[in-house]
Amino acid sequence: MTTDYPVLWPVATRWADNDHYGHVNNVAYYSYFDTAVNAWLIDATGVDIRQLPAIGIVAETSCSYTKELSFPDMLRVGIAIDRLGSRSIVYRLAIFREGTELELAATGRFVHVYVDRQTRRPVPIPADIRTAAERISG
Amino acid sequence: MTTDYPVLWPVATRWADNDHYGHVNNVAYYSYFDTAVNAWLIDATGVDIRQLPAIGIVAETSCSYTKELSFPDMLRVGIAIDRLGSRSIVYRLAIFREGTELELAATGRFVHVYVDRQTRRPVPIPADIRTAAERISG
Amino acid sequence: MTTDYPVLWPVATRWADNDHYGHVNNVAYYSYFDTAVNAWLIDATGVDIRQLPAIGIVAETSCSYTKELSFPDMLRVGIAIDRLGSRSIVYRLAIFREGTELELAATGRFVHVYVDRQTRRPVPIPADIRTAAERISG
Amino acid sequence: MTTDYPVLWPVATRWADNDHYGHVNNVAYYSYFDTAVNAWLIDATGVDIRQLPAIGIVAETSCSYTKELSFPDMLRVGIAIDRLGSRSIVYRLAIFREGTELELAATGRFVHVYVDRQTRRPVPIPADIRTAAERISG
Repeated sequence: MTTDYPVLWPVATRWADNDHYGHVNNVAYYSYFDTAVNAWLIDATGVDIRQLPAIGIVAETSCSYTKELSFPDMLRVGIAIDRLGSRSIVYRLAIFREGTELELAATGRFVHVYVDRQTRRPVPIPADIRTAAERISG
Repeated sequence: MTTDYPVLWPVATRWADNDHYGHVNNVAYYSYFDTAVNAWLIDATGVDIRQLPAIGIVAETSCSYTKELSFPDMLRVGIAIDRLGSRSIVYRLAIFREGTELELAATGRFVHVYVDRQTRRPVPIPADIRTAAERISG
Repeated sequence: MTTDYPVLWPVATRWADNDHYGHVNNVAYYSYFDTAVNAWLIDATGVDIRQLPAIGIVAETSCSYTKELSFPDMLRVGIAIDRLGSRSIVYRLAIFREGTELELAATGRFVHVYVDRQTRRPVPIPADIRTAAERISG
Repeated sequence: MTTDYPVLWPVATRWADNDHYGHVNNVAYYSYFDTAVNAWLIDATGVDIRQLPAIGIVAETSCSYTKELSFPDMLRVGIAIDRLGSRSIVYRLAIFREGTELELAATGRFVHVYVDRQTRRPVPIPADIRTAAERISG
């Protein structure tokens, strides 16, 4: 349900997201996840997260596809936080198709581990990001 | 100038559009063109153009890059028609970045040739598409 | 280990697979999975699987990222079958980077459910595909 | 003709390169160009061109599509240099499909302008790249 997700970030399909079978290819759903989480982080923190000393590297993702999508569907990516650790954030995600109401098309999981931008060694989550994450956690 | 384009179709960048150099990769601009032209056609005709007996196959494209873009930029694709033939449409396109005003980032060209959906032999432009194209031509 | 995977399908990275952080974006790993499984199926069956009366629709995918990749890395996608059902195939996948030896970069899971090409209702796995799958199962 | 291109760089199609019409989407051809030129440059110079003080930014591209492609086609990107300037390189490109012989599928143009990696202002082509380019020029 949409109410399970504090954020419902808008993402638009693209023509080439559709594959040979005339529906959105399974890979594209991950670009919706990736785009929504990062766009929300940039918006919620008000900073360019790519310039912070620590960056979020993706450690794990998954997606369960429940309904076909097709260009030019307009989507909402539901974003919730399942676990806010000291060095990682586990997101619970969903994809809804816009229509007369939002219809669930997929659910997923997305794990960011924070690393030093130069050394790529694990470090604590930057303060700006933690603050944004806390706002939508628990 | 934006006034050179009867249509200014909204397209959003995605996280992975940025490449190793931290700007939108040259390839992604073509997905903006492709998406905008087809989304506009679907919207302007009110039909799923992929189900028409004739479909538009891309015969030629080009892009001249004038300004770097970067996620999460929001864009407008300017769409104009340079030549409306009996079997083909030549589009003149542009990409503008949204900001306090629309800033030109690229200009391009995109040629659709209409072919029979089954045989893939050239055929006249379908009536629905011709009507939509005429509305923004000349 | 590579010996856990009966098939090691070659896939090449592309320039634009690298994202803002100078490594292969998490989304691209799924295009390696998708490409390898389908290319192997086409090769192993000797038929264009997209023309069969039943097609494999992706129901679930996941990936665990263990090592960064970067263009122009050459890869091998390890393909094994975890479960060969009557209507679905669960693949266990891995991505190895070519070098002096194959180095594990990611592991994943990929579930194909077979559906009728027209109605998109679940149907048994086509004989050609079942035969190919059995050859690398158990 | 293949003999018009001193380099014939191998590129493989991917499953999701095919779009709704069951052929390789027009956008994907540019990822073949992009990948082939950069992979060849890395190979021919023996250095990671992304770490040089000057990098090649794409100023202009075009493609003329002559033949449909479809996954799992294996390709060769023909690379020739039309003009080797002091600050830019104009490539003449082609895409051939592998088969009993190489069949022409598209021709294109790709312009790299060299800029300082930090300031992004135009600078002379780095020596390593000029040497590689000269080897295949005129």
